[in-house]
Amino acid sequence: MRDHFEVRDGDAAGRIGRLSVPRADVTVETPALMPVVNPNIRTISPGRIESAFGAEILITNSYIVHSTDDLRERALEEGLNDLLGFDGPIVTDSGSFQLAEYGDIDVTTREILEFQRDIGADVGTPVDVPTPPDVSRERAERELATTERALSDAESVDTGEMLVNAPVQGSTYPELREAAGRNAYATDLDVFPVGAVVPLMNSYRYAEMIDVVAGTKRGLGRDAPVHLFGAGHPMMFALAVAAGCDLFDSAAYAIYARDDRYLTVRGTEHLEDIEYFPCSCAVCSAYDPDQLREQDDEERERLLAEHNLHVSFAEIRRIKQAIRSGNLLELVESRARSHPAMLDGYRALLDHADQLEREDPVSKGSFFYLSEDAARRPEVLRHHERIGRVDAGDRVLLTEGGKPSGDAYDAAWRVVPPFGPFPRALSETYPLTAEVPDRLDLAAYEAAADGVSRVVDANPDSSFVLAHGDWPESALECLPDSVELENLRSDEQFG
Amino acid sequence: MRDHFEVRDGDAAGRIGRLSVPRADVTVETPALMPVVNPNIRTISPGRIESAFGAEILITNSYIVHSTDDLRERALEEGLNDLLGFDGPIVTDSGSFQLAEYGDIDVTTREILEFQRDIGADVGTPVDVPTPPDVSRERAERELATTERALSDAESVDTGEMLVNAPVQGSTYPELREAAGRNAYATDLDVFPVGAVVPLMNSYRYAEMIDVVAGTKRGLGRDAPVHLFGAGHPMMFALAVAAGCDLFDSAAYAIYARDDRYLTVRGTEHLEDIEYFPCSCAVCSAYDPDQLREQDDEERERLLAEHNLHVSFAEIRRIKQAIRSGNLLELVESRARSHPAMLDGYRALLDHADQLEREDPVSKGSFFYLSEDAARRPEVLRHHERIGRVDAGDRVLLTEGGKPSGDAYDAAWRVVPPFGPFPRALSETYPLTAEVPDRLDLAAYEAAADGVSRVVDANPDSSFVLAHGDWPESALECLPDSVELENLRSDEQFG
Repeated sequence: MRDHFEVRDGDAAGRIGRLSVPRADVTVETPALMPVVNPNIRTISPGRIESAFGAEILITNSYIVHSTDDLRERALEEGLNDLLGFDGPIVTDSGSFQLAEYGDIDVTTREILEFQRDIGADVGTPVDVPTPPDVSRERAERELATTERALSDAESVDTGEMLVNAPVQGSTYPELREAAGRNAYATDLDVFPVGAVVPLMNSYRYAEMIDVVAGTKRGLGRDAPVHLFGAGHPMMFALAVAAGCDLFDSAAYAIYARDDRYLTVRGTEHLEDIEYFPCSCAVCSAYDPDQLREQDDEERERLLAEHNLHVSFAEIRRIKQAIRSGNLLELVESRARSHPAMLDGYRALLDHADQLEREDPVSKGSFFYLSEDAARRPEVLRHHERIGRVDAGDRVLLTEGGKPSGDAYDAAWRVVPPFGPFPRALSETYPLTAEVPDRLDLAAYEAAADGVSRVVDANPDSSFVLAHGDWPESALECLPDSVELENLRSDEQFG
Repeated sequence: MRDHFEVRDGDAAGRIGRLSVPRADVTVETPALMPVVNPNIRTISPGRIESAFGAEILITNSYIVHSTDDLRERALEEGLNDLLGFDGPIVTDSGSFQLAEYGDIDVTTREILEFQRDIGADVGTPVDVPTPPDVSRERAERELATTERALSDAESVDTGEMLVNAPVQGSTYPELREAAGRNAYATDLDVFPVGAVVPLMNSYRYAEMIDVVAGTKRGLGRDAPVHLFGAGHPMMFALAVAAGCDLFDSAAYAIYARDDRYLTVRGTEHLEDIEYFPCSCAVCSAYDPDQLREQDDEERERLLAEHNLHVSFAEIRRIKQAIRSGNLLELVESRARSHPAMLDGYRALLDHADQLEREDPVSKGSFFYLSEDAARRPEVLRHHERIGRVDAGDRVLLTEGGKPSGDAYDAAWRVVPPFGPFPRALSETYPLTAEVPDRLDLAAYEAAADGVSRVVDANPDSSFVLAHGDWPESALECLPDSVELENLRSDEQFG
């Protein structure tokens, strides 16, 4: 049991948690966005990132500090907090990125962890190997073995109160990610970055990103805080949180600003293509795009970075509020409609509905049916599994209308797409209080028909009548032949 | 031809326009949000609404001014601009709302229009009858006749340079709305409010709201500026703009604030239920929900009203940017995922795809396929109509793969769901450059099959081979029997 991470609320596989950071003597609420601070470049000062944006935790690269004489000496003398001008906890990366980019770095896991400890890092990182996507399985396994040796080395370092990252690699092989997750979880390390997903995100391969995260999560225990390493674009925060990620780091806010790129929850825009700022932040209220373009380079970059942080932190708050309200998947539905690749990501998430179902709370605030994809949500899956274990009686009416008069039936269950049938006593329980559109899609009826099949399969000796409100043919075809049909639209006897 | 409204850009039935307001000697860019200013209550001063939120135009109620001795005298003496402290154009309502609420008012259309003229209103309003939803057809027709007499009366008033509203009524009868629109358009009046939709919006009947707007739009010419009267909730702005609405008025920002309600583009939250502000505006960045709750009543109301205006104006800018980028329907897709009733609204909008198609630009920036609903978008409809008029040749390969080797075919067309087949020469034209998810839904394949049928129907003497990437059975069943099938996944000869 890892007692430095406490899950306080959840929705799908997303959660609000508290990460205790003993060295800083604070807890950080997750999901959390950790702005990346480059020790050499300060687009926005860390002090302002804390005061104006509410950042609780930052991340910086200890390898850059280590390789720069002046920074190294100051960091060892003053400590990282004073060097950066930030009071809260600071995570340090190890140079693994430089290793992946340049093929070689001049520190070992032991050296860099001891250095991180000595400069006062709150969460340190060993030197893992960020294996890119699409490599051969053999290479992925070989490099994963190296990463796992780094984790083992890290365990043997005296890191004091500093928490230590246990990166999970494995390229685009979900089963390697799962094995890597299991290995990382079995160490005594503390935080679990999903590594080397940046190339997937940069090429909009969100479905594969989700498969990688889902694989990793299968290997980890629920009390493992998960960091989606290198993920800083607000368009995918909700999807990643719903898959079980707790920590994000954003270099994007600054790097994109340098390049005149403007972040939104629906994607990235280039400043030169914007005529109207689609945002309510202080920057976008004070300036119009022409005015922003007229600023000198440094000021424009600073203002764009501030916008980028505003939109990123607002999305994190929106996600937390959605978890508290129990409508995180409704937010993901909306975000999935920003780009076809995000829709692929959402559809991939629903491929793992059984995995989500294991963590999803039994009762939440509301269930909104918002697309045909919602017919595959974990709540529907769970209802089907549960209802398939209920004893229904001998002769059962399943009806979208009212109760039948007389007592021709042992029971009269309600039917609501996409869930299907359930005893009336459950009518006021989640998710059967769902709000559904009047204009329902085929997927909702077909899922309801699947629910009917579950009940019929579970009660082989019972007979069933389904009184439906003119269901489409394709849904009726999904039903077992033994179910007798009544169309309520053509025959109002049950209305 | 109404030369005071110029359409400058469009997307679906939405447009960016310029409304010339001669009395104020300015043009107002639409879609525009007109904050409602109650002459007796100033939650936020009109001057601040202009300077901090960029409001170009306001709306107030001339009936309240007329019925309040002090206000009436000051308005006649100083003029409305000085009375309210706002330099830009001001629209005045007539008391029709009070008529609907209390059954009687003490002014005629002539009196109130002359008063509006005398106090310097820029857009005046006659006394129409806001017929509520669901009334008998007889009552709707009777009241519409009264409204139409008011329009006729208005035409006979000397209103000088003041523009005059021509409200369109007709309850929930789209064909009455269409007739009313046609009648209003035939007057010499200037701006066209769709009246009495507030009860529909308040009860989340967005599908019927869209049917009412679509009916009205069928009656009006394209050069008619349309005001969705009483619509101030940002969650439905994008949907309403896509249906062809140009002007909105928001009393919601202030009324909701009085009641501790917090607007978002995904619905309304009560302040007491919010733990994290899902917004990047200055208010939500400076305060957390606990801090806002601790403010005194007046300050809390003012801050909530400011948030409500920030989120509303940001959504208007977002919509304008979407029209400029040609992705307004993509924004509507996202907004449709805020509530099942909004999804009904979007599905109702797509029921009018033929009507949207007549105004939708032939070429836009991008087509993102974002849900099964997108298979019914006007761009897909238009492609199907166009491709059904193309001469295909004698023996034609329709293929999702590459070109065939050899010359067994007269032509080899590409096939892309949801559009279906098209000659390769069109590959780089809108919307065939669409981005589609890898995990396509049935609706996309079925729409593509519909495209195949159109081509086959148009070329009865040709023979067709469809080389498809393992289409689902239900899509293949939609095809004419004469089409020969090759599955590219099981037979790579065309790969």
